[in-house]
Amino acid sequence: MQLQMSVQREDSSMDGCTDAVARAWSAEEFGAAAGEWQRLLTEHLREVMAGRTKVLNWSDPQQSAQAAAAWLEHPLAAGPDGVAGGMRQLLQQMLSAGQNLHHPHYIGHQVPASSPLAGLLDGAAAITNQVMAVYEMGPWATAVEQALVSRLCGLTGWDPSTSSGILTHGGSLANLTALLTARNVVLPQSWRDGVPAGTTMVANADVHYCITRAAGILGLGAAAVQKVPLDARRRMDVQRLDDVLIELRRGNRPVIAVSACAGATPTGAIDDLSAVADVCRRHEVWMHVDAAHGGSLLFSRRYRDRLKGIAAADSVVWDAHKMLFVPALCTAVLYRRREVRFETFQQDAPYLFDPSAPGMADIDVGMRTVECTKRATGFGLWGLWALFGAELFEQLVDRMLQLTMRFRELLNSEADFEALHEPECNILAFRHLPAEVRLLSLAEQNRFQRELRTQLIREGSFYIVQTTLDGMAALRATVINPLTTEQDLRDLLTAVRQCGQRVWNL
Amino acid sequence: MQLQMSVQREDSSMDGCTDAVARAWSAEEFGAAAGEWQRLLTEHLREVMAGRTKVLNWSDPQQSAQAAAAWLEHPLAAGPDGVAGGMRQLLQQMLSAGQNLHHPHYIGHQVPASSPLAGLLDGAAAITNQVMAVYEMGPWATAVEQALVSRLCGLTGWDPSTSSGILTHGGSLANLTALLTARNVVLPQSWRDGVPAGTTMVANADVHYCITRAAGILGLGAAAVQKVPLDARRRMDVQRLDDVLIELRRGNRPVIAVSACAGATPTGAIDDLSAVADVCRRHEVWMHVDAAHGGSLLFSRRYRDRLKGIAAADSVVWDAHKMLFVPALCTAVLYRRREVRFETFQQDAPYLFDPSAPGMADIDVGMRTVECTKRATGFGLWGLWALFGAELFEQLVDRMLQLTMRFRELLNSEADFEALHEPECNILAFRHLPAEVRLLSLAEQNRFQRELRTQLIREGSFYIVQTTLDGMAALRATVINPLTTEQDLRDLLTAVRQCGQRVWNL
Repeated sequence: MQLQMSVQREDSSMDGCTDAVARAWSAEEFGAAAGEWQRLLTEHLREVMAGRTKVLNWSDPQQSAQAAAAWLEHPLAAGPDGVAGGMRQLLQQMLSAGQNLHHPHYIGHQVPASSPLAGLLDGAAAITNQVMAVYEMGPWATAVEQALVSRLCGLTGWDPSTSSGILTHGGSLANLTALLTARNVVLPQSWRDGVPAGTTMVANADVHYCITRAAGILGLGAAAVQKVPLDARRRMDVQRLDDVLIELRRGNRPVIAVSACAGATPTGAIDDLSAVADVCRRHEVWMHVDAAHGGSLLFSRRYRDRLKGIAAADSVVWDAHKMLFVPALCTAVLYRRREVRFETFQQDAPYLFDPSAPGMADIDVGMRTVECTKRATGFGLWGLWALFGAELFEQLVDRMLQLTMRFRELLNSEADFEALHEPECNILAFRHLPAEVRLLSLAEQNRFQRELRTQLIREGSFYIVQTTLDGMAALRATVINPLTTEQDLRDLLTAVRQCGQRVWNL
Repeated sequence: MQLQMSVQREDSSMDGCTDAVARAWSAEEFGAAAGEWQRLLTEHLREVMAGRTKVLNWSDPQQSAQAAAAWLEHPLAAGPDGVAGGMRQLLQQMLSAGQNLHHPHYIGHQVPASSPLAGLLDGAAAITNQVMAVYEMGPWATAVEQALVSRLCGLTGWDPSTSSGILTHGGSLANLTALLTARNVVLPQSWRDGVPAGTTMVANADVHYCITRAAGILGLGAAAVQKVPLDARRRMDVQRLDDVLIELRRGNRPVIAVSACAGATPTGAIDDLSAVADVCRRHEVWMHVDAAHGGSLLFSRRYRDRLKGIAAADSVVWDAHKMLFVPALCTAVLYRRREVRFETFQQDAPYLFDPSAPGMADIDVGMRTVECTKRATGFGLWGLWALFGAELFEQLVDRMLQLTMRFRELLNSEADFEALHEPECNILAFRHLPAEVRLLSLAEQNRFQRELRTQLIREGSFYIVQTTLDGMAALRATVINPLTTEQDLRDLLTAVRQCGQRVWNL
């Protein structure tokens, strides 16, 4: 019967469709457009990776938005070059006006120069529109996610058969999900009846803003976050953590979680997780670790000890789109005790969840994540792992951390640069302080760093970012690009110096 | 200087990298793998679109997870076929075990058989890892998002210069974002100090579960959602809405929003938005419209009147990954008054937001969305629009709605089928009731529908879903595939009948 129907379809397929619809769903048009796509992307990556382009092609935001809108005016596929020609034009525009993260001089945000191979699998999932919520919608996507979560739980130090987790769209959403679960476990009535006044959350003072946001979203109020002061290495001061928890207990204020960092966004500092765990255990408080950035150190025999104690956490957040080098977004929310995974939500959705198959609840990810329909975010990580093995991630982590330490040595060897901390990770905050700038006030030094960075990235030879540490404006580098070499870091110092001269002379 | 550096790089690039790292970041290896990718995907789409495969290749969830894990054991790229050969194997696995949404017999969830061309642009964004948060990270992605949001605001009936919005990862997250904004506008202290006891939200009784979830997440408690009963067409009963709001005012209970549906998930019913708007205006309550599914009717001259009144809403959620036929996820959160766009959050993040450039806050999407780093979700929609014009979306909406109405006629012409409502959209719930089943109790009839569907999708000739309406189990179709024809719908009835016979005889 299937054969017969397919024969019929040869004659009648897209029956009654307009020409545009027929072309937008034609496998042949797709094939031709994908051919252009493959050529253009390969050539683009070749140029960018060799450093033969700018890192960022700076453009005025308003003008760019107008330019993007202009493409919506006249259907390209109706032109002489058809669908494939239109695709070529769109890609050329997109590739020429974006960020070139694969340039060796991209040493900026905690978003990697991802392996382009991982992006191919993400792209295949997008084209075939594999999504998740219930198993039957994305059976292979669900299987891949289960396999990955199980491995990541194992690396965290847990038994995969008693732990659990999901993949979700990024660290902010992941932290929100984990803290919501904590809230619902600690205060079981809060899902149905709302959050009691006085509920608190405790966090490292350098915690990512999404943790404070989570308190705002979850109904505690952002002011309910008790920030624990830092020690000299910008780690959570564990003695002070104990003090804060004692104080909260005295005030009878419920604590939904203690949120530790591995590593913190400004500097990559990693909390002493064993010590934090001891305090949390003593106070019987949920321990959450935002390991969005640092989780990947668990792949490295050389560096995994920096996360010692993470196995005591109740929940862990880990971004694969940072140091596992897959395209954004792919984040794991992991729970030490798998029985808490259904505490995040309670709902009824008969068009999704088949009441005649309750056993599927454990497979269907929609029960455990904020998204209903969810992208299949795991294919890139799965593909990279399958192609090169877990050793690839170890090699990447080791290379990034070693290069960052080398960068600090380079900075220390130059009189006009200052590293602001010992790197525990692949993040390093620093300042450029030529003799004339050292004489300025802190406010003027800050203005100099910021203006210098703005000029540097607009000129396009390098991409780095900025931060502020205790009121001090700093330049900030994340070594998150396997194409970056020590020579690139030397060249960065030269470029910063030249740019600083120009800013000084303005 | 750039030229000189690139010459150096020819010799020293990937200096000190391991072989695996070098291959994972090689433009040449990428090009070869992308060639395989283009061939396999084109052939796959050709077969699926012609209906020469099953819709779903059902497999046991546990076995699938084990199979996915097995691929992580031995690095494929080390094998004789290298990177490109490994990519071929991974794609073959993935394509053979997924959902084939592009099969003409996929008539299931509200996830479309998207135009594969849109997926190419998503794929290019993944490979080059274009992300958003601050403008400089994804300048062209940001420009594209601004252009799209401006057009969608215009279609909603608003002046793009006084309205605003963002794109985000799906309808659930979008509804959460819009309702959080409403909460913070209505109760300005709630961000800092938490949600006052007694806070409520009002919603259509058929509202998507993410709305109730939002109340649970946002600290109101899921029980704080006041469900408004439905009228005979399963729309919010506007008189009862008025009653509910009067009652809440009497009890001095704050209302963060009234959440209306366009259309509701079970049946696609669209609330009378003009009437809802009148009530909301009279009570001075925030009007939210979950138009995740139905928003796209605004592209159609024939059907846009069904959303009359939407311009009075304070916030609207609109999924492009439903009836605009782009791959999941791409959702717009739209605000009628642009000044509310910063009420969603208040935070400080010096490593992201440059205090020396406060004007950028309007451009940087990270200030307004739950995600920090966000995927560039708009490229697929932008590309499809640029290739074929807005007319494409009108043609698609018209085709889907007309085919759904035709489906109802087909069901009504057969004695053993029953359509459960007049379709206002492209969703239709129905039952198969052969004479022998009509004699059964409702519970037994329900079991029959569910078992029938399970058998049907596992056998693989069609993919439809199920729902429950007022305790009645039903089959449910979403016509969301331009390849589906009237003949396919006739064949569906035959297949359901045959499957029903088999279930009956079990």
